[in-house]
Amino acid sequence: MTHVADLHTVLAALAEPVRLEMTRRLFVTGEAVGCAALYDTVTKATASHHFKILREAGIVERHALGQGAAYTLRFEEVEAAYPGLLAAVLNAAPTR
Amino acid sequence: MTHVADLHTVLAALAEPVRLEMTRRLFVTGEAVGCAALYDTVTKATASHHFKILREAGIVERHALGQGAAYTLRFEEVEAAYPGLLAAVLNAAPTR
Repeated sequence: MTHVADLHTVLAALAEPVRLEMTRRLFVTGEAVGCAALYDTVTKATASHHFKILREAGIVERHALGQGAAYTLRFEEVEAAYPGLLAAVLNAAPTR
Repeated sequence: MTHVADLHTVLAALAEPVRLEMTRRLFVTGEAVGCAALYDTVTKATASHHFKILREAGIVERHALGQGAAYTLRFEEVEAAYPGLLAAVLNAAPTR
């Protein structure tokens, strides 16, 4: 299991609007979400890049789903590493 | 008075290690701090660049101090815009 990355990496991952929106949708849903439902303003290739950064930051986890993938938010892991951070960010995140 | 910037801008400002450390020192001190006491790993020119980004994000305020400058943290303003965010980030910030 990936560890949650250092604070700078986590903040940089969340600072990008597309990635913040992916994270927000996972939080709102509260369960695994197919990757195509997590973005709608970028190409699939760009989305893959953003998913990779979120995974490497330890914010999301990828799950194989047929030929595609689904993601879950690692809320408890991020909360344990940086208490209050993800909740504060998600509460402040604009709804798209 | 500068407004606190959008969430992406604030997170990006805090994601950079030198700027996070400047912010952390202002928080720990709790009062105006001369700019030279807020960094020690970068040149003055680089520090000026980072101060500008923090100012434009609405995180710090600049005060003229003789021929130099001092800064204060706009904790209450950021707290009002994004409740819990700055406290969570600063609690998680490594001490340098």
